[in-house]
Amino acid sequence: MKATARAHTNIALIKYWGKRDRSLILPMNNSLSLTLDGFYTETTVEFHDYLTADVFYLNNDCITGKAYQRVTSFLDRVREKAGRTDVYAEVHSVNHVPTAAGLASSASGFSALAAAASKAIGMQLNNQELSVLTRQGSGSACRSVYGGFVEWEKGLKEDGSDSHAIPIVPANHWDIRVAAAVMSSDAKKILSREGMERTVNTSSFYPSWVESIPADLITIKKGIMHKDFEKVGSIAEANCLRMHATTLAAHPPFTYWQSTTFLIMEAVRDLRSSGVPAYFTIDAGPNVKVLYLPEDEETVQHKLRSIAGVRDVIVSKPGQGISYV
Amino acid sequence: MKATARAHTNIALIKYWGKRDRSLILPMNNSLSLTLDGFYTETTVEFHDYLTADVFYLNNDCITGKAYQRVTSFLDRVREKAGRTDVYAEVHSVNHVPTAAGLASSASGFSALAAAASKAIGMQLNNQELSVLTRQGSGSACRSVYGGFVEWEKGLKEDGSDSHAIPIVPANHWDIRVAAAVMSSDAKKILSREGMERTVNTSSFYPSWVESIPADLITIKKGIMHKDFEKVGSIAEANCLRMHATTLAAHPPFTYWQSTTFLIMEAVRDLRSSGVPAYFTIDAGPNVKVLYLPEDEETVQHKLRSIAGVRDVIVSKPGQGISYV
Repeated sequence: MKATARAHTNIALIKYWGKRDRSLILPMNNSLSLTLDGFYTETTVEFHDYLTADVFYLNNDCITGKAYQRVTSFLDRVREKAGRTDVYAEVHSVNHVPTAAGLASSASGFSALAAAASKAIGMQLNNQELSVLTRQGSGSACRSVYGGFVEWEKGLKEDGSDSHAIPIVPANHWDIRVAAAVMSSDAKKILSREGMERTVNTSSFYPSWVESIPADLITIKKGIMHKDFEKVGSIAEANCLRMHATTLAAHPPFTYWQSTTFLIMEAVRDLRSSGVPAYFTIDAGPNVKVLYLPEDEETVQHKLRSIAGVRDVIVSKPGQGISYV
Repeated sequence: MKATARAHTNIALIKYWGKRDRSLILPMNNSLSLTLDGFYTETTVEFHDYLTADVFYLNNDCITGKAYQRVTSFLDRVREKAGRTDVYAEVHSVNHVPTAAGLASSASGFSALAAAASKAIGMQLNNQELSVLTRQGSGSACRSVYGGFVEWEKGLKEDGSDSHAIPIVPANHWDIRVAAAVMSSDAKKILSREGMERTVNTSSFYPSWVESIPADLITIKKGIMHKDFEKVGSIAEANCLRMHATTLAAHPPFTYWQSTTFLIMEAVRDLRSSGVPAYFTIDAGPNVKVLYLPEDEETVQHKLRSIAGVRDVIVSKPGQGISYV
């Protein structure tokens, strides 16, 4: 009853922003992401009948508190689904995600955990079933089951059984680049879940956000099919700005942006003014990821590294989905 | 046929953002402003029957081009209204508005022009009639007819005769302060009219903006009546953020903010975190104005002057409406 899985993180180009069901983690809108090869989590799960509780090691540290609670609650779902509520797990996770890069480790983390745990406990889930399971640990993690460009279909059913990711092209369809700008100063902590909830509950712009998604998805999927970088980049950037605009209309208003965030956005616009197709996207935090084409590697790196407040730039390519080690 | 008038500029706390009629300058929503004593325009208009065209001097320079066209088009309206299409005017305007402060000189400019021109041509307009006339030169200028806190009622009539400002309290009701942070670098030019139109025509958040105004107005007017600074400041700041959020959802998206804009917003939030009630507001440009109470003068000035990119800080108090010199 032991398995090891590796999962990569992903970056949303059309954002997941708002839940319709908190417990099952069902989203208000479809989202679309690119799985990234540079950032992954490798997790080994072994179930023992002699354990009386789960044990969770992250990067060799024994974890307690909230992070442990989230893992053990998720393993409860796995045990229930497998009909094996009599076993507990020893979980070893190693994050190959530089946390300073501001890339969500929960996406790769829960994706690897779901894959390893379900296999270790003896379930044979296909990727779609695995995505449904993974979603219940961390919403955006359900997209990391697949490589490349992936859509998370929100689904319609109340039980969430049709809310899962699907790949929209083969994982190796298109070689683009994503640079994560690492900030010098410690990013201030703003809880993404809290901000999302406040926005859904109080922002007068939130309903328009939800209504705007289908058109974005149609356009960006066409752009991905035809490898139209300008179309994909401009839709992703506009979608990101629209998502962040909803927080400015929350009550009280707030923003995830910091002044360095703003400088990076300006630098990306400067790149475009000088003829380099580059586009930014920002999740529920201050960090900025920049999309560009392989041939502009040097120009983009140079520009991003020249920004006051940017300490490092980490580049990623499109990555693969879940694999078992 | 000669008259001189002085008008002060004003800063909107509930923004005028979007026209329902371009020619008559009729707004989509009511707005609310504070007239400022520190920034004014003094204009002398003299009509001569020997002139064959208007002549316009601004700060002793003879003006031609677009600015001249706007003035002479406005004087056409004055002549038509007065039934004196046979006379042309010599206009001398002096702006006591530091243009670097990013405070709209068109508000004080068209307000002073409307007052001086209508008096010089022999019309005796009351302030409400003057506000209707002024609005046709520059929308927000119609609020500068009155001192202190002023509401611009959008009106319902197609001819615009009920779209004018009204004072909501006596001009000397409440002594608060407004600091304009002057930026070191030249502000990049973004046309406010163009941005406003693009937002009205393409932003999916624009209808929600219009719907959100009545609630803001009720709350801020209560706050002004009761001199509740926190209420007034927080509504003004939220309204400004909501207005700027509409531009992020335009197609293509854009922003009037620059990185210094963002630094000043952060500094104002810092002031609040340290117990100083200060709030920002931003018009269709990068400049930031900060509202605070007289007793916090030193702290606010010190904080704003410490920001990289801020060259000067210009403080204003509530000002009077139109006066004739």
